[in-house]
Amino acid sequence: MTEIITSMSNSQVKNLIQLQAKGKARNQQGLFVAEGIKMYREAPKERLSGVYVSQRFYEKYKDELFGPGELRPVILSDRVFAAVSDTRTPQGILCLVRQFSYTLPQLLGEKPLLLVLENLQDPGNLGTILRTGEGAGVTGILLSAGCVDLYNPKVIRSTMGSIYRMPFFYAEDFSGSLDWLKRNGVSLYAAHLRGRKTYDGLDYTGGSAFLIGNESKGLTEETAAKADALVTIPMEGQVESLNASIAAAVLMYEASRQRRNRRQPSLQS
Amino acid sequence: MTEIITSMSNSQVKNLIQLQAKGKARNQQGLFVAEGIKMYREAPKERLSGVYVSQRFYEKYKDELFGPGELRPVILSDRVFAAVSDTRTPQGILCLVRQFSYTLPQLLGEKPLLLVLENLQDPGNLGTILRTGEGAGVTGILLSAGCVDLYNPKVIRSTMGSIYRMPFFYAEDFSGSLDWLKRNGVSLYAAHLRGRKTYDGLDYTGGSAFLIGNESKGLTEETAAKADALVTIPMEGQVESLNASIAAAVLMYEASRQRRNRRQPSLQS
Repeated sequence: MTEIITSMSNSQVKNLIQLQAKGKARNQQGLFVAEGIKMYREAPKERLSGVYVSQRFYEKYKDELFGPGELRPVILSDRVFAAVSDTRTPQGILCLVRQFSYTLPQLLGEKPLLLVLENLQDPGNLGTILRTGEGAGVTGILLSAGCVDLYNPKVIRSTMGSIYRMPFFYAEDFSGSLDWLKRNGVSLYAAHLRGRKTYDGLDYTGGSAFLIGNESKGLTEETAAKADALVTIPMEGQVESLNASIAAAVLMYEASRQRRNRRQPSLQS
Repeated sequence: MTEIITSMSNSQVKNLIQLQAKGKARNQQGLFVAEGIKMYREAPKERLSGVYVSQRFYEKYKDELFGPGELRPVILSDRVFAAVSDTRTPQGILCLVRQFSYTLPQLLGEKPLLLVLENLQDPGNLGTILRTGEGAGVTGILLSAGCVDLYNPKVIRSTMGSIYRMPFFYAEDFSGSLDWLKRNGVSLYAAHLRGRKTYDGLDYTGGSAFLIGNESKGLTEETAAKADALVTIPMEGQVESLNASIAAAVLMYEASRQRRNRRQPSLQS
């Protein structure tokens, strides 16, 4: 009664593989792939376009996860599921989710705290930045067109669900978008190795954006020149730079700390 | 005149592959593999036990990198080098370095700031923690025996050289080592989801250690019970936890900030 797809040449299977591997296919179809139970559970129901499970997963969770009113999953043989999965040890569930579409003003939230990423290349860094950003109260993320695709499966996985909740915008006109932010009361702080100001010596309780550059090249001169201040994170020893997601985290949580403590001073032990 | 190894069955080649893949082989020989130009350049000369380069790399850099007084590199054909390398796009140089051997007291430095890692599993997290730790002024890292091997090539790579400079100690008696730290004036702060105290409300200017647990399970009850305080990093949105290397970075840089500002108050803009 329950049909199981066992062939790699099945058209749905071929399409899933395309969607995992190719940004172009994802954009043409307006979809992305989210793998794992947590990513399935947190997906906004109205954006779910398909659910695929391995046979083993289906047998184990069919009553718990796929009750009445839920999208009926397509069942793949364990072998086919493993081939479609982007992970080495697949949990056995993935879903197709409709891509998001935010506008630049939506990144501002009530009290703007943005990350601006220029040519960031590492998928793990980008995903981790979304996850940390949600935790730190970031209101949105602006990306240059040269950044890695946010819908890359490795990015999606490392967001741990934040992809569903964090507004983001890929700027065709990156420079113009920075100007727009400034006109809208957002101060730009560039993380920069030549920064003269220590990051914790500035006030981020007003509208603020942190500019983070490419992992090896940093920010372009043009972008750094737009910043209201170049800030640096002090480094001891012989460390030349911090990982991009670490630098972003230190900056975001400093802003979070300042914003929290302005409302409620931290208790000194 | 210059001999080039072209065979995968050469005994040195077979040994390099063993050293890349197996912690046991590394420990038996007391060596680890460090790949890339930066890792070669920063390696303490007295610990270098061998240098291997691809033919192409050798042709390009022989005068610049291997002058008189430098260890003579062994040359591998490009194909053999690629097979030995742990990276997808090898730079063409790797070296064998003698393992370090620190004692517990060496982790204390002048003003103890430690990271204590329990059953940390992800190589990238561990390497990033060493790198960030050096930058934040951490004096040493204590690891439970259940942590990933620090000499794993993926860890080494993500330390970006900090492996050469950060004292560390794998504790057979983890619980006893925590007691030893406490007896030596180090307060233990456990990063814990049930923490009642916000991390920035405590004073880390005295001897301090941050306890970080396994990526999915956190700290064991036994270890958390030894902490002087359970601390939490506030998270907004639906974020359930932060990546282990991110949480460690936020805590380390809060300690760094406090220690810096006690000496020199930060300027408010």
